[in-house]
Amino acid sequence: MNYPAIEDVRNVCCIGAGPIGGGWSAHFLARGYDVVSYIHDAAEKASFLEIVETAWISLESMGLAPGASLDRLTIVTDLQAAVKGAQFIQESAPEVIAIKQALYKQLGDMVPHDVVISSSTSGLTMTEIQKHCSTPGRTVVGHPFNPPYLLPLVEIVGGDATDSDAVSWAEAFYRAAGKAPVVLNSEIPGFIATRLQEALWREALHMVANGEATPEQIDTALINGPAPRMALLGQCMAFHVACGEGGMATNLDQFGPALKWPWTRLEAPELTKQLRDRMVDGCDRMASGRHFSKLAAERDRGLVEVLKAVAAADILS
Amino acid sequence: MNYPAIEDVRNVCCIGAGPIGGGWSAHFLARGYDVVSYIHDAAEKASFLEIVETAWISLESMGLAPGASLDRLTIVTDLQAAVKGAQFIQESAPEVIAIKQALYKQLGDMVPHDVVISSSTSGLTMTEIQKHCSTPGRTVVGHPFNPPYLLPLVEIVGGDATDSDAVSWAEAFYRAAGKAPVVLNSEIPGFIATRLQEALWREALHMVANGEATPEQIDTALINGPAPRMALLGQCMAFHVACGEGGMATNLDQFGPALKWPWTRLEAPELTKQLRDRMVDGCDRMASGRHFSKLAAERDRGLVEVLKAVAAADILS
Repeated sequence: MNYPAIEDVRNVCCIGAGPIGGGWSAHFLARGYDVVSYIHDAAEKASFLEIVETAWISLESMGLAPGASLDRLTIVTDLQAAVKGAQFIQESAPEVIAIKQALYKQLGDMVPHDVVISSSTSGLTMTEIQKHCSTPGRTVVGHPFNPPYLLPLVEIVGGDATDSDAVSWAEAFYRAAGKAPVVLNSEIPGFIATRLQEALWREALHMVANGEATPEQIDTALINGPAPRMALLGQCMAFHVACGEGGMATNLDQFGPALKWPWTRLEAPELTKQLRDRMVDGCDRMASGRHFSKLAAERDRGLVEVLKAVAAADILS
Repeated sequence: MNYPAIEDVRNVCCIGAGPIGGGWSAHFLARGYDVVSYIHDAAEKASFLEIVETAWISLESMGLAPGASLDRLTIVTDLQAAVKGAQFIQESAPEVIAIKQALYKQLGDMVPHDVVISSSTSGLTMTEIQKHCSTPGRTVVGHPFNPPYLLPLVEIVGGDATDSDAVSWAEAFYRAAGKAPVVLNSEIPGFIATRLQEALWREALHMVANGEATPEQIDTALINGPAPRMALLGQCMAFHVACGEGGMATNLDQFGPALKWPWTRLEAPELTKQLRDRMVDGCDRMASGRHFSKLAAERDRGLVEVLKAVAAADILS
């Protein structure tokens, strides 16, 4: 399929009047696109606009692209009119499989075949969603993180009938549009970020259920401990840097046996040579030759600023 | 026991020459205390000083307490001299139970009974550590998060023979010394923060083992998705705010069934009425009457600054 050149994309259509649809609309407007937003019911217009205008406050303080303006937003309740001229479609309809399937059936016939249609779904797979779509090759999942106008992550994955070209195109387009895309290897439930967050969340619920911690203790511990570091380095690199000279290899070789401890309710995988090598090689690639002392200095400089930002926001003290 | 008034504490002894002992020494110096640091071997002095001086760069940019100075650090290799005059002892000896037990046996006799001795241990319990100590009432765990001179979290818990007064004193002292203490209800392995981090970590290892994600994908997803939000709000409040009007109650009532999905390898607890109420009540307490729209606005303002700090640090791009 001959998808449009990324730099030629000017017109984006966003489907959905909720916080995700509204958040996407605001994001694309802030990046300088013309945005047509489809809302199902004219009665949703006021709440939709409130979402966009609330997002705009933050987007302005993050910095707008040249020419970006709320004036470049058009709101319509006619789907055919919404998709007309669109070079990319971000779909954020309700998370109900029947609704999504019916929508993709319509869109599949209505939208030119060289336009990528990307779904914000967090819980459904594109293989299911695209089932009744006549042109499923260009349909992908592009799952944002809430709030979608601020958090850069977009997890991208195709369904069984998706062309790999459409996935690559979506990745390049999201990157050009100021997002941090991650292309998944396979359609796993929860994708990557939600799975990780969900593991932590389940452990948190266990602790509260057992009277081992309160929600306040959990949030205080996260805010003042692992989370600021994770915001800068993720988790693999946080350990890589913390372990000094030996990095991730030391972490796994030294603390590997601790994986067998009954910490948390999540059983650990077998620490095979293959797993060890994948972890070590991945961290080495991210370190790009930087010595741990340089990485630790970069971490500390970053932590100072992140902690100042968290302290200034002071939401939960 | 008559512990010293918190505001009278001027002299702190830090035991341990590694990154944790050095990090604690730097922290207390930066908060304006006189610090005597015990190192086991004079040969460790240079590396110990390097840790303190590296930490000092970040501590200066976070802001020092009036009168804080590296000149107020004394390094000794004699334990008796180290603890003399100390009004609080932070112990960061190697994580070997026999070493810790022998040390607490010595300290128990050597240190006046009204001086709280706090262990940085991450993997041992105070019940084990204090076994051969003749004065175990004032011994507690005060577990920091790495790097201890920057991350504010200290998890506090006593052993079976610890006085509850010592735990309360330690909490008040750490707070006065610029830390964010969390007192645990019980001696659970991994305390709170490490357990949560470990659940996420095990899920990450499973994903890498199964070829579902690479370390790079995991770290990119965390940095651009859940982590900046978690740094500001923790996880309970991140969900509370994301769910709009209904907050945590909506989260649990609406997504509760999803806990049964085979997302992650960690089985979820039964979502009992008691667990639901604990979660909802905890979030309500943290919200302190703020409407979700106010909390969401505070989150967004904070996220803008955290994201700017993360982007400026730009460690993994």
